Amino acid sequence: MATGLPGTSRPGGRTERTRVAVLRATLDLLVERGFPDLTVEAVAERSGVHKTTVYRRWASRDGLVAAALQMGTEVPWTPADTGSLAGDLREMLLEVVRAFTEPGERELPTAAVLTAFQSARAAEALHDFYQERHVRASVLVTRAVARGEVPAATDPDEVTRTACGPVFYRLFISREPVDDATARTAAEAAAAAARAGVLTAQRADESG
Amino acid sequence: MATGLPGTSRPGGRTERTRVAVLRATLDLLVERGFPDLTVEAVAERSGVHKTTVYRRWASRDGLVAAALQMGTEVPWTPADTGSLAGDLREMLLEVVRAFTEPGERELPTAAVLTAFQSARAAEALHDFYQERHVRASVLVTRAVARGEVPAATDPDEVTRTACGPVFYRLFISREPVDDATARTAAEAAAAAARAGVLTAQRADESG
Repeated sequence: MATGLPGTSRPGGRTERTRVAVLRATLDLLVERGFPDLTVEAVAERSGVHKTTVYRRWASRDGLVAAALQMGTEVPWTPADTGSLAGDLREMLLEVVRAFTEPGERELPTAAVLTAFQSARAAEALHDFYQERHVRASVLVTRAVARGEVPAATDPDEVTRTACGPVFYRLFISREPVDDATARTAAEAAAAAARAGVLTAQRADESG
Repeated sequence: MATGLPGTSRPGGRTERTRVAVLRATLDLLVERGFPDLTVEAVAERSGVHKTTVYRRWASRDGLVAAALQMGTEVPWTPADTGSLAGDLREMLLEVVRAFTEPGERELPTAAVLTAFQSARAAEALHDFYQERHVRASVLVTRAVARGEVPAATDPDEVTRTACGPVFYRLFISREPVDDATARTAAEAAAAAARAGVLTAQRADESG
C-alpha cells in the first residue's frame, strides 16, 4: 500500500523514458539530500537530461517533486483477500510496516512524508497518493459488507484511516518501533470498530 | 495532550531564567527557520545569553533542540473525566486537534514532528514527550476498567495509540483536514476496540 513510489513500467518512447529518468533522479536526490538541497540542475545532471528540458516540462523543484511522488499512483496495488476484514487489513498493514521499516525500501516513503512538511505541492502529491490507495482499499469494506461482517453504512476511508493510524503514529509521532504485532493489533482494532458500527460515513459528518 | 511545548512556569533563579530564555529562543527559531538553519549562535543572540554559556551547557544545536522539546513534559496535563472512555478520549483528541490546527498554536508541535525527521536527538525527545503523555493518559483506561467498561487486561498505551492514530494519519500522511468530527470518530473507534478486547497487552505481544 505504501510501496510502489519508485517508478513505472508503462511502456513508452523517448519522451516517456526521459520522464522516468528525470523523476527517478528526483526521487534519488530527495532521499540522498532532502528537499531543501534539491535543485533542478542536480536533477538534470543526475538524469542526463538537459536542464532546459527539465525546466520546460516541470518548471521548478516543487513541480519535479510533485510529479515524482505522483508517479507512485501509477504502480498497481491490489489488496489481499483473506476472507475476513481483520485479515485483509492485517495484510495491508504488514505491507505498510515493511515499506517503512526495511532498509533500502523505507527511505523513499519516509522522504515523501518528510517532504510534505517542506513543500505544499509535495503535500498535495502525498494526499493524492493516499487518496488513490484509499480507493483501492475500499474493496475490503465492500467485501466485509457483502459477508455481513460490518454494517452496510461503514465508510471504507474511515476503516483505512483507523487501521493505518496507529502504525504511522508509532513511526512518526511517538517514535516507537513497529513490527508485525503492530500491524495485527491495528488491523483487529479497526475491524472491531467497524463491526461496532462507529466507522460509518454518517457518524463522521455528525456535529455536536 | 499535544500542547504545552512552549515553556515552563517552574520558579527559579538566574540559572533557571537563563535556561528558559535559551530554550524558548530555540523553539522560536525552530518554528521560524527550521532545524537545518538553526545555529547555536542564533539561539545565543535571540536569547541574549552569551554563546559560550550556551555551548557549555547544551554543546550543540541537537542538544538545544532535545532540551527544548523535553521542556514540554514539564507542563502539566490532566485528562478530562467525562464518565466514559469514549468521552474521555474525545476530550483528549479535541485537544490534539486544536493543538495541531489553530494558527499561532499549531506551528510548534508541527515543527517538533518535522524536526524528529532531521535530528535523532529530537526524535528521542519527541518519543519521550509522547511516552510521558501515554503515562498521564493511562488513567482513562484505569477508570474504564474500574467501571467495567473494558477488560482488565486492556493496555492503556494501545488505547492511546489507537485513538491518536487516525488524527495524526490525516495530519501528516494522507494530508486530509482534521476537525472535531475526526476527534469524535477516532475516540469512538478506540473505545469500541477496547471494549471488544483487542487492545490488550497480551495480544500485542503475540506472534504468528
